[in-house]
Amino acid sequence: MKEIKICIAGLGNVGSSVIQSLVDSKNFINLKSNFNINILGISAKNKNKKRIIDISKYEWFDSPLDFLNTDCDIVIELIGEEKGLSYDLVKNSLKNGKHVITANKAMLAKNGSELFKLADQNNKYLLYEAAVAGGIPIIKTLKNNITLNKVKKISGILNGTTNYILTMMEHDNLSFDKAISIAQSKGYTSPSESELDIGGLDSAHKLTILSSLCFGAEIEFKNNYITGISEIKYEDIKNAKNLGYKIKLISESLIVNNKIFSITSPKLISMNNPLASVDGVLNAINIETDQLESLFLEGEGAGGKATASSVISDINEIFTNINVNSLGFKINNLTKYTKFELSNLESPYYLRIMTQDITGVLSKITSYFKDSNISVEKILQLPETKDKPIPIIITTHKVKTETLLKSLEQIEKQSFVLDKIIVIPLDNGQE
Amino acid sequence: MKEIKICIAGLGNVGSSVIQSLVDSKNFINLKSNFNINILGISAKNKNKKRIIDISKYEWFDSPLDFLNTDCDIVIELIGEEKGLSYDLVKNSLKNGKHVITANKAMLAKNGSELFKLADQNNKYLLYEAAVAGGIPIIKTLKNNITLNKVKKISGILNGTTNYILTMMEHDNLSFDKAISIAQSKGYTSPSESELDIGGLDSAHKLTILSSLCFGAEIEFKNNYITGISEIKYEDIKNAKNLGYKIKLISESLIVNNKIFSITSPKLISMNNPLASVDGVLNAINIETDQLESLFLEGEGAGGKATASSVISDINEIFTNINVNSLGFKINNLTKYTKFELSNLESPYYLRIMTQDITGVLSKITSYFKDSNISVEKILQLPETKDKPIPIIITTHKVKTETLLKSLEQIEKQSFVLDKIIVIPLDNGQE
Repeated sequence: MKEIKICIAGLGNVGSSVIQSLVDSKNFINLKSNFNINILGISAKNKNKKRIIDISKYEWFDSPLDFLNTDCDIVIELIGEEKGLSYDLVKNSLKNGKHVITANKAMLAKNGSELFKLADQNNKYLLYEAAVAGGIPIIKTLKNNITLNKVKKISGILNGTTNYILTMMEHDNLSFDKAISIAQSKGYTSPSESELDIGGLDSAHKLTILSSLCFGAEIEFKNNYITGISEIKYEDIKNAKNLGYKIKLISESLIVNNKIFSITSPKLISMNNPLASVDGVLNAINIETDQLESLFLEGEGAGGKATASSVISDINEIFTNINVNSLGFKINNLTKYTKFELSNLESPYYLRIMTQDITGVLSKITSYFKDSNISVEKILQLPETKDKPIPIIITTHKVKTETLLKSLEQIEKQSFVLDKIIVIPLDNGQE
Repeated sequence: MKEIKICIAGLGNVGSSVIQSLVDSKNFINLKSNFNINILGISAKNKNKKRIIDISKYEWFDSPLDFLNTDCDIVIELIGEEKGLSYDLVKNSLKNGKHVITANKAMLAKNGSELFKLADQNNKYLLYEAAVAGGIPIIKTLKNNITLNKVKKISGILNGTTNYILTMMEHDNLSFDKAISIAQSKGYTSPSESELDIGGLDSAHKLTILSSLCFGAEIEFKNNYITGISEIKYEDIKNAKNLGYKIKLISESLIVNNKIFSITSPKLISMNNPLASVDGVLNAINIETDQLESLFLEGEGAGGKATASSVISDINEIFTNINVNSLGFKINNLTKYTKFELSNLESPYYLRIMTQDITGVLSKITSYFKDSNISVEKILQLPETKDKPIPIIITTHKVKTETLLKSLEQIEKQSFVLDKIIVIPLDNGQE
């Protein structure tokens, strides 16, 4: 029976749950594996914080960097800073011949390129199942289970907070502001985190990691297009529903003409796409490969227990899997892709144009579209109460994004247009 | 670069697709792994059958048993007989120190107990990702990705043919007979396979394997309760829909009071259960563990390419994973569970009682229920055209199955009951 010695930095919800789960599963682990897991040291900012576990049984380190003076096999980084101590700990652990497990998506999205190379040079694992989609084992699915599939496209709901907000807006007819305050009151997001969540950055961090796993792309956060959900109104969700869609914050990545196209943005998802049924704080991912038309995974995207499950699965991986390519691809085979120009994307779109209540508006808008060969699929003209702007809702057939945006720029200059035009891509189910 | 030498027995849809995929992925595999896969020999019943691949490039063996005279590392069994040549080949391959990959659920469900022990004694892998749910990597998910989770319950749609039939009945208002003939004309099932599919046996074979992986249960096919879909009428599907449910053939397994309860049966699934949205030939599985409230996987349950993806993932597994417990649990830690008595199950139920069109029928039925303390949730009385039996549809609250069946036995004896009462368990979403 091999003893695996681990040290844990960061004892928040996830860190505490990791310890709790390891204690609870001690006998069970012996039924399935040839190792015992021994917690050699722990460290956190505040030693005296109230926690679900009794930390007095474990050796305390004021600085996690002192883990490096122990003979631990694995350093588990759950501090969660994008740079700072998290980065220093991971970097120095790898340099000192320790395996590293982290849940830190921001750090990996921003510094992963350097850190994964360092892991490879030292023949150590840098694993991160908990960094993407909480308890869903999406990393191991891509890295091990379908590793010899060529991924064509990955798309998912990678942020539970925004999905919860959109679900609340839909189910309870709430405004965006009301929904976000409920999400905050439930502890799903804090005002300081909200920008990361709502702005789409958190999802984009995760998508950066997934793109690397799927396409062997060098980790380059700058390749992401990012639009958050703050411009989505309750009315858009209602309009989408009338048209047969749900609005979700979708992160998707694919290779188009040898360029990488990674985008996090609200999108109208048709009801027969399984992502449309993913409600509340759940996460979900759909994978299309050369061998699989669709592989869909759904589960808890956050929460202590679920995320701890992923951290612990990485411990198991380090001592059972002998393929040390932490990103699936050999590090020297990663590709530095050029960013696909969004303006070249061909997609159907949903548009909301807020106009004055005067006659002839619709014919003026459609004549601009006609001039640019933009083909309209449906128009909903929804009269609001008097004196208010009239929203005109239009869905287009597939159109080159550049063409659409140029035409909308013209339309926006017209005096009858009273607000910025809302433009949301639409899932046509046939991409 | 290590060379992995494989031999393939059975060149039907799956076997041919494995060869095709290995040819297509040759360069891609080099980007991710340190091995080349070399097809050392092939064998099938009929050498001259038309296939998607050119087999003249590979060494032909009239009998796959002669693979054992080569120095191949892995024998891939895709013949698919429950016993016979499939069993002989797998057994002798393991005895001769070859790893084995198979897609053969019937063989594993019936003879797995012996075969997995043999694999363990010889320190060889016996892998079977392709045996359950086609392209969905459910085996590796349970065995590797969430291996240190204690599974509480697994439930799934494990047979695409029956799911296709139920979906056709629902969407196109078809009778069972019409739907099955369409499924046969599409090649999803043949008259000879239909009993395996429709009767629920194929699903139960797969569930047997999953139960072993989830709970460390000895492989014992006899522990399954099996009811097929042949008694489901279009009207039941319509009634279920009115009540907010879909009828699916569900396979589920859990441990109740230290006994194993494995059942394949039609079930009314509530719309908020993700299994309700799984339509057509898709398969899907939901897993509940001590750490995860729900992990849901959906994908293609059959088809050459998708199943080949699973076979190839097993090749990768053999040369990257050093935990040789093919069932996840150490073979000596498997448990011989007692079978949970179905009569002790507490569940809500859907009932269809075909009655004469005379007054007082309903009050008679409900008085029997009252005598047995069976609590009715809803009653739908749906008049059909004159002279025909009147179907009375009843859903109950949670009731002990034995109590319900005894009461129904009484009711069935009454002259106003014109047919066998249809009894389908109902998913209350709170199990």
